[in-house]
Amino acid sequence: MITKRESMTMLDEKTAVQQLRARYQRVRKVSENICSPLNTEDYQIQSIVETSPPKWHIAHVSWFFETFLLKPHATDYRPLHPQYEVLFNSYYETIGKFHPRAKRGLLARPSVDEIYAYRRAVDAGMEAFFNVLEQSPDAQHQSFIELGLNHEQQHQELLCMDIKYNFSVNPLKPAYRNDLAISPTNHTCAIQWHEQVAGLYDIGHSGGSFSYDNEAPRHPHYVPDFRLANRLTTNGEYLAFMEDKGYQRPELWLADGWHCINQHNWQQPLYWERDGANWLQMTLGGLRPLHLHEPVCHISYYEAEAYARWAGKRLPTEAEIEVVLAGQPMTGNFFDTDSLHPQPANANGQWYGDLWAWTTTAYHPYPKFRPLVGSAGEYNGKFMCNQMVLRGGCCATSLEHMRPSYRNFFYPHDRWQFSGIRLADDC
Amino acid sequence: MITKRESMTMLDEKTAVQQLRARYQRVRKVSENICSPLNTEDYQIQSIVETSPPKWHIAHVSWFFETFLLKPHATDYRPLHPQYEVLFNSYYETIGKFHPRAKRGLLARPSVDEIYAYRRAVDAGMEAFFNVLEQSPDAQHQSFIELGLNHEQQHQELLCMDIKYNFSVNPLKPAYRNDLAISPTNHTCAIQWHEQVAGLYDIGHSGGSFSYDNEAPRHPHYVPDFRLANRLTTNGEYLAFMEDKGYQRPELWLADGWHCINQHNWQQPLYWERDGANWLQMTLGGLRPLHLHEPVCHISYYEAEAYARWAGKRLPTEAEIEVVLAGQPMTGNFFDTDSLHPQPANANGQWYGDLWAWTTTAYHPYPKFRPLVGSAGEYNGKFMCNQMVLRGGCCATSLEHMRPSYRNFFYPHDRWQFSGIRLADDC
Amino acid sequence: MITKRESMTMLDEKTAVQQLRARYQRVRKVSENICSPLNTEDYQIQSIVETSPPKWHIAHVSWFFETFLLKPHATDYRPLHPQYEVLFNSYYETIGKFHPRAKRGLLARPSVDEIYAYRRAVDAGMEAFFNVLEQSPDAQHQSFIELGLNHEQQHQELLCMDIKYNFSVNPLKPAYRNDLAISPTNHTCAIQWHEQVAGLYDIGHSGGSFSYDNEAPRHPHYVPDFRLANRLTTNGEYLAFMEDKGYQRPELWLADGWHCINQHNWQQPLYWERDGANWLQMTLGGLRPLHLHEPVCHISYYEAEAYARWAGKRLPTEAEIEVVLAGQPMTGNFFDTDSLHPQPANANGQWYGDLWAWTTTAYHPYPKFRPLVGSAGEYNGKFMCNQMVLRGGCCATSLEHMRPSYRNFFYPHDRWQFSGIRLADDC
Amino acid sequence: MITKRESMTMLDEKTAVQQLRARYQRVRKVSENICSPLNTEDYQIQSIVETSPPKWHIAHVSWFFETFLLKPHATDYRPLHPQYEVLFNSYYETIGKFHPRAKRGLLARPSVDEIYAYRRAVDAGMEAFFNVLEQSPDAQHQSFIELGLNHEQQHQELLCMDIKYNFSVNPLKPAYRNDLAISPTNHTCAIQWHEQVAGLYDIGHSGGSFSYDNEAPRHPHYVPDFRLANRLTTNGEYLAFMEDKGYQRPELWLADGWHCINQHNWQQPLYWERDGANWLQMTLGGLRPLHLHEPVCHISYYEAEAYARWAGKRLPTEAEIEVVLAGQPMTGNFFDTDSLHPQPANANGQWYGDLWAWTTTAYHPYPKFRPLVGSAGEYNGKFMCNQMVLRGGCCATSLEHMRPSYRNFFYPHDRWQFSGIRLADDC
Repeated sequence: MITKRESMTMLDEKTAVQQLRARYQRVRKVSENICSPLNTEDYQIQSIVETSPPKWHIAHVSWFFETFLLKPHATDYRPLHPQYEVLFNSYYETIGKFHPRAKRGLLARPSVDEIYAYRRAVDAGMEAFFNVLEQSPDAQHQSFIELGLNHEQQHQELLCMDIKYNFSVNPLKPAYRNDLAISPTNHTCAIQWHEQVAGLYDIGHSGGSFSYDNEAPRHPHYVPDFRLANRLTTNGEYLAFMEDKGYQRPELWLADGWHCINQHNWQQPLYWERDGANWLQMTLGGLRPLHLHEPVCHISYYEAEAYARWAGKRLPTEAEIEVVLAGQPMTGNFFDTDSLHPQPANANGQWYGDLWAWTTTAYHPYPKFRPLVGSAGEYNGKFMCNQMVLRGGCCATSLEHMRPSYRNFFYPHDRWQFSGIRLADDC
Repeated sequence: MITKRESMTMLDEKTAVQQLRARYQRVRKVSENICSPLNTEDYQIQSIVETSPPKWHIAHVSWFFETFLLKPHATDYRPLHPQYEVLFNSYYETIGKFHPRAKRGLLARPSVDEIYAYRRAVDAGMEAFFNVLEQSPDAQHQSFIELGLNHEQQHQELLCMDIKYNFSVNPLKPAYRNDLAISPTNHTCAIQWHEQVAGLYDIGHSGGSFSYDNEAPRHPHYVPDFRLANRLTTNGEYLAFMEDKGYQRPELWLADGWHCINQHNWQQPLYWERDGANWLQMTLGGLRPLHLHEPVCHISYYEAEAYARWAGKRLPTEAEIEVVLAGQPMTGNFFDTDSLHPQPANANGQWYGDLWAWTTTAYHPYPKFRPLVGSAGEYNGKFMCNQMVLRGGCCATSLEHMRPSYRNFFYPHDRWQFSGIRLADDC
Repeated sequence: MITKRESMTMLDEKTAVQQLRARYQRVRKVSENICSPLNTEDYQIQSIVETSPPKWHIAHVSWFFETFLLKPHATDYRPLHPQYEVLFNSYYETIGKFHPRAKRGLLARPSVDEIYAYRRAVDAGMEAFFNVLEQSPDAQHQSFIELGLNHEQQHQELLCMDIKYNFSVNPLKPAYRNDLAISPTNHTCAIQWHEQVAGLYDIGHSGGSFSYDNEAPRHPHYVPDFRLANRLTTNGEYLAFMEDKGYQRPELWLADGWHCINQHNWQQPLYWERDGANWLQMTLGGLRPLHLHEPVCHISYYEAEAYARWAGKRLPTEAEIEVVLAGQPMTGNFFDTDSLHPQPANANGQWYGDLWAWTTTAYHPYPKFRPLVGSAGEYNGKFMCNQMVLRGGCCATSLEHMRPSYRNFFYPHDRWQFSGIRLADDC
Repeated sequence: MITKRESMTMLDEKTAVQQLRARYQRVRKVSENICSPLNTEDYQIQSIVETSPPKWHIAHVSWFFETFLLKPHATDYRPLHPQYEVLFNSYYETIGKFHPRAKRGLLARPSVDEIYAYRRAVDAGMEAFFNVLEQSPDAQHQSFIELGLNHEQQHQELLCMDIKYNFSVNPLKPAYRNDLAISPTNHTCAIQWHEQVAGLYDIGHSGGSFSYDNEAPRHPHYVPDFRLANRLTTNGEYLAFMEDKGYQRPELWLADGWHCINQHNWQQPLYWERDGANWLQMTLGGLRPLHLHEPVCHISYYEAEAYARWAGKRLPTEAEIEVVLAGQPMTGNFFDTDSLHPQPANANGQWYGDLWAWTTTAYHPYPKFRPLVGSAGEYNGKFMCNQMVLRGGCCATSLEHMRPSYRNFFYPHDRWQFSGIRLADDC
């Protein structure tokens, strides 16, 4: 006999599965929406090794559900093609071989149509899987579906980044979309400094809802007195650094940074180009005049760090940002705003969204970190070396994907992500 | 008053223009036919720096007519897009900048459709140009059209080569066409040696019809007694070299060749792959079992040279091949056969077509060579260093594109062209 | 009139200068002693870009005194050669240009003799400088001399490292010295785990004596409960990892580490080589059979980290090591022991010396870190990116150069330093 | 019984051996004389992969006698060290392994002293070998000794080239020798054109005295009417090319040449450097002001070819030079002059010596070329690809090493050899 309480729980569990199914449908749709302005040719290209062809993203996020849910747990699922397991595996060594990352752009076949057929097949498999799950909820399966959806949201941000890069290398400078809103404001506010008192703070995710394994466990961390800028550094401020010969003065740079900018001949942020006396900036809406009050974006850690030194300030640690973010409402210019470009800060400051802020913290495991069990353990842990943490989300991040404890990470020389500068200072 | 003779001449000239216009239409159609089995994605990719995306070829051959005829000489022609001049210039420095060769595959835009629209616009321009030309024939313009058509035929061969390479790097090993004829014969003939007596031979094109500038001027060249194989070396013969540890014995190789095969870890011809105890070979018709009596193809000069040494023979000079070819009927397995793959020789020998035969002659100017005047002078002359001459045409060469004096050329390490081995020997 | 107290102070100050002079003479002599077994040819070579020719070290450490003391502060000092400022500048951008690091080995001139003449000239300048200093002690000058001596001691360790590498690449496998003591013991002790309770610990140098700028300021840092191995991991233990296919199992490795070992084809620690069924190890005393109870040395961070994962443990943080070291007597197998090779631990454990222990802490500035003023500020600060901290000193470190707060740092892929593994674990 | 004729022959043969022994001693001494101005450090370095450390040359030329004569044929010879066979083998695959060319400069050991001891041991072995040979002359052994002496003379030229390069990369710009004669003349003569009528000429060495295998067999070759400059192109003439933007105009260059000069940023010949408005040139006598009437030297094939095109002329073929040289007395500025630098031509022209003249002929085998039997067959034959022939000898070539049929060869991008420009023209 089923008690009322049990019956209630079952109802709740079924509702949870139904909500998850709705979320699945919603998130999956977003990926396709992002790609809808693309030509078949746009789907195909990989302009640098760090980026992937859009069609590969579309396939890989499906592969994730197929690999972690359908193949091991769905009884009736039949894979569409035996080689897709290899072609669309990104980097999971424990699952098997994978097509070399640098050669994803050479996969003319499967075609875009075939990849959407694969996507449809996975979606059909997942719908059947949800039918079973509604009858027999399974916490672990649901948690993997949640992971898969967060994974897909990360790739939605990657799609925006990669599409932007792909379009930028084309001398025709095509616009990905012509209907993107352009910032209406022509000013920004002066930086306000948020002051925080020193203390032993708990850092990391406290559980109870989804987070990646790398945000746990929550643990005490001593943070000294510090001040944090309430908005990101602007193009205009960065231009002052450039005009003060910032890129020519080695004393402003980390040794590896100085080597990097000289090796690649970087004299300005990615996507800036000279137009006589003016600067233009490539955006997802095409080439635009540089907007001095928008946050400076697509800079490397080296550039952020040199700018901060020039400005007489420093970059924050990840703990400092988390402590402050935890006390702020989570609003901002996210993917949901549909600008796909950072906007000038208003009087309320700019705490979340717009651009990922570089921190001086290397991406390493938290004390007593345990990766997920099985192949999903490769999701985050094995990248915990040589990269720096960025915090706060950006204009290509979905709002529902964000948390104060969220740790993004890139190599110090990476620039194609939506990265910016938030200054900090000692008190 | 126009005399009868003048009138006759004018008629002849008009007929010549009309024939040229018909040839233009025929040749242009062939390029599109070659591409008809391609997906949009197939048009886009550039799998190595040596190859170009098929859509780039389709645009570039049109650019050639636009640049050398329409822009300078067609009064009403309006270019479709100002940047196409740069995007589709291959290497003509005197015309202006060009998009970097290695980045042709990153041009998602213009799309395939836009490129065909460009092609249509050039064709329309050329039709109007022919209309004028029929009224006022112009030897120089017609000669440039002839050059443009030969240029396009070269790119037709390049399209076959590049498509083959692009398809081969895909782990799915797709077939470009499933309807290609496969060689019916399962044997070949023993090599017959054509003997030629020493003497001072005239080499090069004698004028009177089209040739490239690099085939002229015809000039005397002393050739010693020699013998030339009447057919190409077969896969079976090459396999014997491999099984005799040909790829492991440095004494068989030129120093640069030994370095090359070790650097790239070459242990077999391009497109061969092991299938247990057997060999498979990637073709334009997909993966096929290796056919022992077909000529060995897609080998570098180094491999051809090492094989010849192992076989106790040598490779021929370009003069030796030309002297013999000049006495043979120009038939063979050309593009027109529509096999797009070399075939076993029959009892009549194999003098033209199937595969370009490597020669030991470096590609240098003939005595008193004069390149074409103007930018067309860059067509051939500036490549006369570091490359080796190949002779005889191949299964991807149009029969009407061939001549005994035709000089093809590639770097010694190149393998993606349809190249093979024709042995020679001293008498 | 000078009071007694002033007089006493002056005496003390003069004594301090005299002691510093004696230390100067002693430290400078050590560098020359290290080089005394070298041929002129040994002084010349630079086997990889990370190493420097011994003669360059000998010149550079003199350059340091010349540049930071004699040129700015010694009134009578005349530089020996105008170009030495550039040739022997290591990386001080604010001082001026420097000879490219990768080309130090191409400086056949100045000869070894000329470099020793330069060294003599700097020493003479410094003796004169000490004469003045004895009369007019100057805290800042003395502190720079102290910095110069610590700098030279670092280069003494680099000399040992670089000489070892240089000798190892020679197929003759020459011994740098034949008189080095070989470990007499053929066993080691089982690991004992030092347990430390969680708490907010002060980390960093507390002032009052010499330290580098990167060890300051002392600051609170929360450390969780942890356990630390009382000795380094041995060759025998590491061999078990290798025999368990440690180098073939990607799941044990950081992604960058897996890429690194495959790119360089690393299958064992640097300096190990197979001799049939046995392993040999190149040492400063030449090739020796691998000693299973000696600590495993010359491994990268990646290898240390993979070993720890395989062992079910982890590497310590730099704070964890400092907390423990601060409570241990500073004895161990240092340069002063003259073994120049790590030795098996005895029952008292192995806390200092033998090998630098890799930590999981990226080399970043401490909170409120301020680099030295002027060009000396380039000494440490600009390297605070992409490197990992190592702690504890090694058999090539002078005892008097060591402190619990000492932070050494190398890139994760570096192996030519005397680096090893000290395991840690959570409690 | 020995007849008088036989006795005479035996006497002649013995005399021939004695003369060869005297030549051996003389040639061997020259190598040591070339090195006598070197420091031990100068002996050690390898500044680019193409050059070798002087001490390696000294060892390798001894290795040649040891390997081809003493080890196989001298009954009492005992090799000094078992690993020298590998260390000093240059590229003879059929003899066995060899130390990587790029790492010759890392062989601090054996020391210079040890290498001279090796040299002494080989000399002693050869003296004993000559004793036997005087008693029992052996044509084949004597011919190998002759080959070894010519080999050593080639390395004497290489020593001059490599020493020059090594000294040039040192910012101190040391002079190898301060006593080299500097050209006294401050003018040169206008070019006189030697005219040659077309015809079938015999090319190659006719036997009867020493030549390398690559000069044989003598064979007929048709040469058209041509004109050949009686002197080399001067620095002043080359400067006019540079001032006419020669290095900035792609239409003057071969495609590979244009790529090469831009990749390496070549804007002038090797060893030229700006000194304000003037040019300096590094020589074996140190930095000197550029002498406008001296021949331009240390240029690549690409630069020679571009210059000739700019000048409205062309470079000669190797046959053209040989035909003309064969009719000229073999005098000129050779190694024997002891200037080690090209000199201005005088009224008699400049046919031999000074600088090797680039030809447009690729270095390929002559018809019916047969390499030497055994490992000596690797001496020349395996390099017959990708290189260009140079003719005529240079100021670092010994006069007695020269012949009209002598074929030198380098890659088109090589510049460290004493190479120059001799113009040719069609008639």
